[in-house]
Amino acid sequence: MKKIVTVGGGTGSFTVLSGLKTIPNISITAVVSMADDGGSTGVLRDQLGVLPPGDVRQCLVALSEHSDVVRELMNYRFSDGALSGHSFGNIFLAALEKVTGNFKDGVEVASEILKVNGAVVPVTNNKAILSIVLKDKSTVEGEDKINNTDLQKVGIEDMHYNGGVALNESAEKALLEADYIILGPGNYYCSVLPNLIVKGFTEAILSSKAKIILPINLTNKQGHTQNWNVSDYVADIERYLNKKVDIILINNEPPTKEQIDIYNLKEGSGISVQDDMNDGRIIREPMLSSLIHEQTKEDVIPAVRGFIRHDSMKLAKCINNLINNN
Amino acid sequence: MKKIVTVGGGTGSFTVLSGLKTIPNISITAVVSMADDGGSTGVLRDQLGVLPPGDVRQCLVALSEHSDVVRELMNYRFSDGALSGHSFGNIFLAALEKVTGNFKDGVEVASEILKVNGAVVPVTNNKAILSIVLKDKSTVEGEDKINNTDLQKVGIEDMHYNGGVALNESAEKALLEADYIILGPGNYYCSVLPNLIVKGFTEAILSSKAKIILPINLTNKQGHTQNWNVSDYVADIERYLNKKVDIILINNEPPTKEQIDIYNLKEGSGISVQDDMNDGRIIREPMLSSLIHEQTKEDVIPAVRGFIRHDSMKLAKCINNLINNN
Repeated sequence: MKKIVTVGGGTGSFTVLSGLKTIPNISITAVVSMADDGGSTGVLRDQLGVLPPGDVRQCLVALSEHSDVVRELMNYRFSDGALSGHSFGNIFLAALEKVTGNFKDGVEVASEILKVNGAVVPVTNNKAILSIVLKDKSTVEGEDKINNTDLQKVGIEDMHYNGGVALNESAEKALLEADYIILGPGNYYCSVLPNLIVKGFTEAILSSKAKIILPINLTNKQGHTQNWNVSDYVADIERYLNKKVDIILINNEPPTKEQIDIYNLKEGSGISVQDDMNDGRIIREPMLSSLIHEQTKEDVIPAVRGFIRHDSMKLAKCINNLINNN
Repeated sequence: MKKIVTVGGGTGSFTVLSGLKTIPNISITAVVSMADDGGSTGVLRDQLGVLPPGDVRQCLVALSEHSDVVRELMNYRFSDGALSGHSFGNIFLAALEKVTGNFKDGVEVASEILKVNGAVVPVTNNKAILSIVLKDKSTVEGEDKINNTDLQKVGIEDMHYNGGVALNESAEKALLEADYIILGPGNYYCSVLPNLIVKGFTEAILSSKAKIILPINLTNKQGHTQNWNVSDYVADIERYLNKKVDIILINNEPPTKEQIDIYNLKEGSGISVQDDMNDGRIIREPMLSSLIHEQTKEDVIPAVRGFIRHDSMKLAKCINNLINNN
């Protein structure tokens, strides 16, 4: 049974995992960033002192084999009163952390309740506050603030956590034993890299025999990866990994004009990722979702959502082919 | 398989159900009052427009065969931030009502998630606002307000709901098919009677072949049932039922001095229920819990809790004997 590990955050991991779940005879472990401090998650971190539940919740829902109504419940957002803007699933994980005494055990109980097919593992058990030092030596602190800052105007000098943020033992074990590790897709500086800079992560990757799969993001993020091409993503992630990735997945299905128009309207120009590489490691497949994902009206605690996304099933089909031909 | 129906509210029903759960080969249905509008439940009713989850939650936890940590989760109260004072289980039921579109379906999904052995049925699906008219024609509206009002100073003329509050179809079916119906124990005006005055309830009791079991409360409530004796409870409930009860359960185990001292300190005098009846329907057994139940520090949304309670297992043993000898 092939062991697949995904590395990422919320929406991107949700998409990959929702597809992977349909592949028979594989074991899935989702290693999840713990840097989130925005939206409902940020409020719960601040007010209750819990670890960030939002990204983990999305991975649990993706892998849950419980009924649709239970999965819907986990993503339900309250729209009135003191609970307004909170996702029920975030409150669920916060309460479980309180009851069990730590987030990791809470996630395990949640996995049992939600009949999760696979394992969801926080990348770290430590309180993780992300920090970016720009080239002018100024610092942007906190994932939510980083998410909303133009990092490209000045340029990034360094990205790190305040204090010691070390790889969770279960995450390390999963990385070491994996046959395939999928990095992303997702918000590059806020969901993907926050895993790679956890102390012990790259060491585990270097010691692992796993093939590294890099699904290239479909769009660039303004002020973060604006005007990046495929080669920029590959070069940047390999710099962090200190290792070459093995397989590069590129979507070759163009977005519709409507999708581009909505995206440009929301995100500005330079969001198309140009396919500028010729490399034996590249696999090009149609992987675009035809759905247009909009922010729901209950999303009153601001949190940016993507509008052009991978199609879970197309991405899974591509990964399934890979697994069976390698 | 004998069919047992309990009728009541939160803590009293929790106690009975926790014991009944251990009796093999019976089917249990908990019919639950929907009048609660205090504490965490009241805030959720007000802010989200949901039906009151608190009493139902306690019955679900009592009958849940999930792990202890899941049962603990349901009763966990947040102590910080905007969620402060809310029980997680109440939020869970409120979210399920929103997701499924109605409380009854929400409770069914909750029962499935919590692996409930039995059925928990709200006495009504209608929005139930309890109202008491006193003998001076003044009105006390809302269960929480009634709970905190001295009703005995002036005396009660009438108790009713504002608007139409009718018996839930599943509750009617359970009452009609029951072999035994257990009324209470519990807060008499706020948990027990609110079931009996639901339109259709007494009609269902009258049509049912079930034996009616009345476990007499261990203590009187100041300003509600102060100085009541056993015969007062029996007479009052039979007036509401328009029918004689079949079995009267009286605890004959005296509370400890410590229990009485704490209770008197909190509740004042006249709280002992004097055993003043001689009747073939009476069963006297030791049924007192030796635990002293205190309000927890997380109970920051005020809600009065009892301090002298029935012992679940002793009560269940007594009911089990009854079932097998009748």
